[in-house]
Formats: sequence, structure tokens, C-alpha cells
Amino acid sequence: MRIGVLGTGMVGWTLAAKLRELGHDVVVGSREAGDDARPFEEAAAHGELILNATNGAHALDALAQAGEENLRGKVLVDVTNPLDFSRGRPPTLLVCNDDSLGEQIQRAHPEARVVKTLNTVNANVMVDPSLVPGEHDIFLSGDDAAAKGAVVELLESFGWPREEIHDLGDITTARGPEMYLPLWLRLFGVAGSPNFNIRLMRG
Amino acid sequence: MRIGVLGTGMVGWTLAAKLRELGHDVVVGSREAGDDARPFEEAAAHGELILNATNGAHALDALAQAGEENLRGKVLVDVTNPLDFSRGRPPTLLVCNDDSLGEQIQRAHPEARVVKTLNTVNANVMVDPSLVPGEHDIFLSGDDAAAKGAVVELLESFGWPREEIHDLGDITTARGPEMYLPLWLRLFGVAGSPNFNIRLMRG
Repeated sequence: MRIGVLGTGMVGWTLAAKLRELGHDVVVGSREAGDDARPFEEAAAHGELILNATNGAHALDALAQAGEENLRGKVLVDVTNPLDFSRGRPPTLLVCNDDSLGEQIQRAHPEARVVKTLNTVNANVMVDPSLVPGEHDIFLSGDDAAAKGAVVELLESFGWPREEIHDLGDITTARGPEMYLPLWLRLFGVAGSPNFNIRLMRG
Repeated sequence: MRIGVLGTGMVGWTLAAKLRELGHDVVVGSREAGDDARPFEEAAAHGELILNATNGAHALDALAQAGEENLRGKVLVDVTNPLDFSRGRPPTLLVCNDDSLGEQIQRAHPEARVVKTLNTVNANVMVDPSLVPGEHDIFLSGDDAAAKGAVVELLESFGWPREEIHDLGDITTARGPEMYLPLWLRLFGVAGSPNFNIRLMRG
């Protein structure tokens, strides 16, 4: 599949490398095009499916640069966290409680089919869930059922078992996984490694 | 031990019943004293340890009624969530991101030794973690190490194994477990029962 990956941080490059390994035709987009990255709008135009892996603080700007005509009708997978490091560490969130970055992106691009996922794990775990032994869980939020179905297939291709992928509901449910980040940061301290995840244990 | 349980909702009565079963001398406090409940200040005066299980929206008021002189120097276990149902369901949080209810309580009662815990599970799971089979985890946040040690013992008496009790750090870390609530509400939908919890899976 032709995929546009927006963002050239660790998450963007990790996703792009995995997608190429799986045989996809990937163009990586960046604010400043370089040797391996092209402008956001070229990456978005290239992709049948777009992955937003930009810095959460600049995600809305990056997607505006990508251009509405390059996002229209496409599955837009948003894996970002709206982290605000401007007030020091640990970061706070730029948006939360009665809104989320996933919702902001969907409102800004109503014709894109936004699916929030993968933001609850480190980049390496995103593309290789076997780094965390045993069962553990990943979440989807979005308004478009067919788009979520496409993202389930993408996650399965990364190694996520179908039964560990949970559809939380519409895009407003992205508040849950985004607001989990402050706990994630503390669990990172407990785990001593960023390669961890949570597992839903049922009674 | 003499324990004051503040709050007569399901959480307060569930905690009080378990504590009595364990042989503690419990007085339950309520805004309106009744057959089984006494005023907040009497419950707080009675307790060597205080459990705040009030409605999160009224927790600060309830503790003000309990009275500084009845909280001073005591371990104050806060299990509440600052849920705001005034704008409909799902609830939002009354405080989050750069503050938490745990911190507000500690600031309002600087001589109390506040420990945030148990707010990430349903009342029944709080006092009987075996309702969720397998390993799963619970968290502590607080500024006072000895107070956290006392709470570890209390949780162990409820059936929480020591290795599943994680000290996240000072009281500011209460933001993590409190902001987990929007995800908890969605996981409730996935689990189909409130008797669930999360397990930290390490890489």
C-alpha cells in the first residue's frame, strides 16, 4: 500500500522502517524536506493511508501543511500525544478532559477518517508487540468503522493479535488513551524500561 | 486500629465492612448523620487513620468539615476520583493535568499525611483483589514514606500482594491514576463488568 508517514522523530522513522519491511511504498514527510524526507504535502499526497507521527505540539500545523485535498477520504492514523514540555518535566497535556488531540484533528479535517491508536506504547512496541512478552492490549478510537477495520489489519501486520485490539468507540474516546499518558510516564519509572504495556485483567 | 471512613456511598460502606471484618474499630462519617453514620468530624476524631471515600466533587468540603485538628499528623488515605457528572456522561474531571484532587487535599491539610490509592479499581476490587484472577497492579502516591508504608500494610490486609503495590512517587503523581479514569470508563465497556484492573506487562 502507498503510505505517507508524517514526522521524522523516533516514532515516524520506526513506523516507516516497519512499513517498508512489510513491503509498503512509504514516503516520510517533514516540515523541512531532507535526504530521506519530503514535504508534508508530498507525503500526504502519496499515501492512500496517512500516519500522523509528528510531535503532538505541532500535529495540527503539520496536517494543515499536508493539505485538506491530500487527506480527504483517507484513513488518517494518529499515534501522537499532545505533550507540553514547555513547563518542564514531567510534561502536561496541551489538551485533555473535555477534548483530545484526536478530536481536534478530526474537527480540523472532517473529511479525513481519523483513527487514534498506538499512542499508549513506545515506538518499538508499536511495531513489535512481542517486545513485551505475554498478552497486552492496544486501543482504537474513531468515527469511521471501515477506517478502524483497516487499522486493525495494519496492527495485525505489526504483530498485534486481533483479540488484543480493542475498539473503544468514537473519536471522543481518544481522551482515555491520551489522558493515560501521565500514568504511562509513572509506569515507565516502575518498569525501568519504555518497553512495557498494560493488560486488561477481567474478573 | 481505630479508623474513620468518610463517605457513605458504595465505596465508603464497602471499605467500612471490610475493615470491620478485619477487626478494626470503624466509625463511618457522613454529611448527615444517621443510624450507622456519624458526623464527619466525629469519624475523623475517632480514626488513627482516615479513609476519604466521599464523592470526589465534595471531598474538600467533607474534609473541611472533618476539621484540621482531627486530621493533623494522621494518615489520610484518599481513594476518590474528582468526577464531574454535571455536564453529562461520560463524566469529565473537576481537576487534572497540572493538579489533582490528591494534591488539593494535601494542600488544604498540610499536616495530614495524604496517600492516594485504590481509585483505579471498583470498590469490590479494592477490598478483594482476588475478584480479578491473575496478577494486576495498584498504585500509591504521597509525600510521606511512613504513611505509604502504613497504606501498603492496609492493602496487604485487603489481599493485595506486596509486589503488585507500586509506589509512583510524591503526591503530584496522583495525576496519573486520576487521569486514568477516562480510560478506565472505556475499559469498563470492553470488560463488560466493573470488576477488572490493569496489569503492568514488562518487556
